[in-house]
Amino acid sequence: MSALPLNGVVVLEFSQYLSGPSAALRLADLGARVIKIERPNTGDAGRKLAIKDLWVDDNSLLFHTINRNKESFTADLKNPEDISIIKKLIAKSDVLIHNFRPDVMGKNGLDYKTVQQINPRLIYAEISGYGKNGPWKNKPGQDLLLQSITGLAYTTGNGTNGPVPFGISIADILAGSQLVQGILGGLIRRSKTGKGALIEVSLMESLLDFQFELLTTYFANNEQPLRSKVANGQPLLSAPYGIYQTKDSYIALAMMDIHVLADTIHCGALKHFPKENAFALRDEIKTVLVEHLQTETTAYWLAALQEAGLWAMEVLNWDEMTDHPGYNALEMEQTIHAGGKTIVTTRCPIRINGQRLTADKAAPQLGEQNEKIRKELEVIS
Amino acid sequence: MSALPLNGVVVLEFSQYLSGPSAALRLADLGARVIKIERPNTGDAGRKLAIKDLWVDDNSLLFHTINRNKESFTADLKNPEDISIIKKLIAKSDVLIHNFRPDVMGKNGLDYKTVQQINPRLIYAEISGYGKNGPWKNKPGQDLLLQSITGLAYTTGNGTNGPVPFGISIADILAGSQLVQGILGGLIRRSKTGKGALIEVSLMESLLDFQFELLTTYFANNEQPLRSKVANGQPLLSAPYGIYQTKDSYIALAMMDIHVLADTIHCGALKHFPKENAFALRDEIKTVLVEHLQTETTAYWLAALQEAGLWAMEVLNWDEMTDHPGYNALEMEQTIHAGGKTIVTTRCPIRINGQRLTADKAAPQLGEQNEKIRKELEVIS
Repeated sequence: MSALPLNGVVVLEFSQYLSGPSAALRLADLGARVIKIERPNTGDAGRKLAIKDLWVDDNSLLFHTINRNKESFTADLKNPEDISIIKKLIAKSDVLIHNFRPDVMGKNGLDYKTVQQINPRLIYAEISGYGKNGPWKNKPGQDLLLQSITGLAYTTGNGTNGPVPFGISIADILAGSQLVQGILGGLIRRSKTGKGALIEVSLMESLLDFQFELLTTYFANNEQPLRSKVANGQPLLSAPYGIYQTKDSYIALAMMDIHVLADTIHCGALKHFPKENAFALRDEIKTVLVEHLQTETTAYWLAALQEAGLWAMEVLNWDEMTDHPGYNALEMEQTIHAGGKTIVTTRCPIRINGQRLTADKAAPQLGEQNEKIRKELEVIS
Repeated sequence: MSALPLNGVVVLEFSQYLSGPSAALRLADLGARVIKIERPNTGDAGRKLAIKDLWVDDNSLLFHTINRNKESFTADLKNPEDISIIKKLIAKSDVLIHNFRPDVMGKNGLDYKTVQQINPRLIYAEISGYGKNGPWKNKPGQDLLLQSITGLAYTTGNGTNGPVPFGISIADILAGSQLVQGILGGLIRRSKTGKGALIEVSLMESLLDFQFELLTTYFANNEQPLRSKVANGQPLLSAPYGIYQTKDSYIALAMMDIHVLADTIHCGALKHFPKENAFALRDEIKTVLVEHLQTETTAYWLAALQEAGLWAMEVLNWDEMTDHPGYNALEMEQTIHAGGKTIVTTRCPIRINGQRLTADKAAPQLGEQNEKIRKELEVIS
């Protein structure tokens, strides 16, 4: 491949933690030059946020994971001299990302209206928690809290449970991903109009969009989705959709005709349920399956189900997955060298012209590119 | 806003169900003209896939939700005449999306190598289940199955449960979203190089990318993430992160100092745990919290926690959320008129220059634009 899509594009990242930095990471993977603008002395609070006490250098492994392939420039946004340098930098950049609460950038004279004067071609992209209006606008934009107020915690786990959150930061990742879409759209628009744009995404709107099938159904029938009480897979889907225990482990069954399933696994009791009741009687049907599937191993059932062309798979943990040739065929891992240590992490999931997008540059030390960037500004300005 | 980013871009969607169609829906929201290429007589199998038996016309509500703002053109890909029309259409298009199994497009002479000859500027974008190599390449690319083999089902629910799937089609949505990123990147690259590109995403790589923090941690310490046995929120996070029952409902607690929490909710027993053990002793700490938080209402706890600046929110279901001014301030709903009926659905979560992106054109009837598109081809060619 001759060139990455975003070669030559300069992105300023005023962001902390996950949503903003993950958006900028994707832009870097696609070829952009990403400069983190960080507070002097401390920087992105994510630098000191360690999971399981795993550190690479002064910075946590977590920070390195999200901020590889970026540069770092420190500036005190309360200091007029620093602001004037930042404005010079903005004048030379293509994209600005921030995930601060609504009024923070404005207080420092870095709101869209102001910086648009400096650079009318700038794509100014922001992630908020709950949008910029309404009673929640100043609430903490934190992933679990957004899952909790958007109904999402009632999609997962069985109906006999209380609300169950997703075990990964879904709002951060989706909002970051949609911000990237908006930024790329803005760049395409600019190539035609010559004009920059303001791109806005919020964690809340991202989680509502994520539930679009479920919300549209709810708007139509005014009935709240109910989780199956047994082996819930998705609140709107019929039996057998879900994960079941077997004699030795677990098995996942997707959508399938319950009578074909009955024949395939020799479960006469299943035949008593009319096919058209696979949603209405899903708890009863699944209860029969729970009992029946425990009588044989996962391998036994899989052989029969896959032979019949039914959609079923084993359920793997990370040890089992990473040992499997199906995982290794993807070559999803990449290696980064940072501070004398080796970090193994995942690569960008997008391939272009058959090429896997990897980027093995380590995350920057705080202010690592201060001098370089100051020189560039002198040279260019 | 003068123009949507993708005005003038033509997208051919050879896709069914959710992942491919959701990617094309986003492109349509951003201004592209999307033409679904469908089999005569039946079309996208999603047309007949109804949830809760909700129909708009001959097509399910679900189909309308995912395929609004598109056109439909029918073609039999086994018929040489139809293929020749499709190739004419490809010659005039900018983007082609498909989510068939690896060899389907090739069998019909529509693989990337072939169509690249017809249109070297085409962005050819494909979603597979498991990539195009490896032992799983022909397995069904279905969301629950992908969740099951990538470890994801072990992130959610408590450690005392078996694997618990996410209640929304996470792999489809993420892969669709990443495909959009790749397509937009491809269009940007084309504007500089004049060349099209092959963009590939798989459901499996999308779910591995989604777990990038967790996998990087696993690669570093070789320990599989373990879910908390009590109120699990995220396998790598310390107490109190999770959702708890109160006297009258539930409450979500995000990251916070357990001693500040103890003072705020007057829970002396919490003080006995050293702060630095908030991960190692999370089950014990959470057990204390489960007991204590049941003694007062959600409103009571929230008042105290929010006063102290701690990150906590109520847990809402869809009735409660849609009644809340915080939801209504977002104006996330839009109305579509289809076949004499009104559909209320969600809009695109991205805003450009303050404008919410809505698109109220109903999903097409099967082959609705056949005549129009045939005429355009005659006129242009």
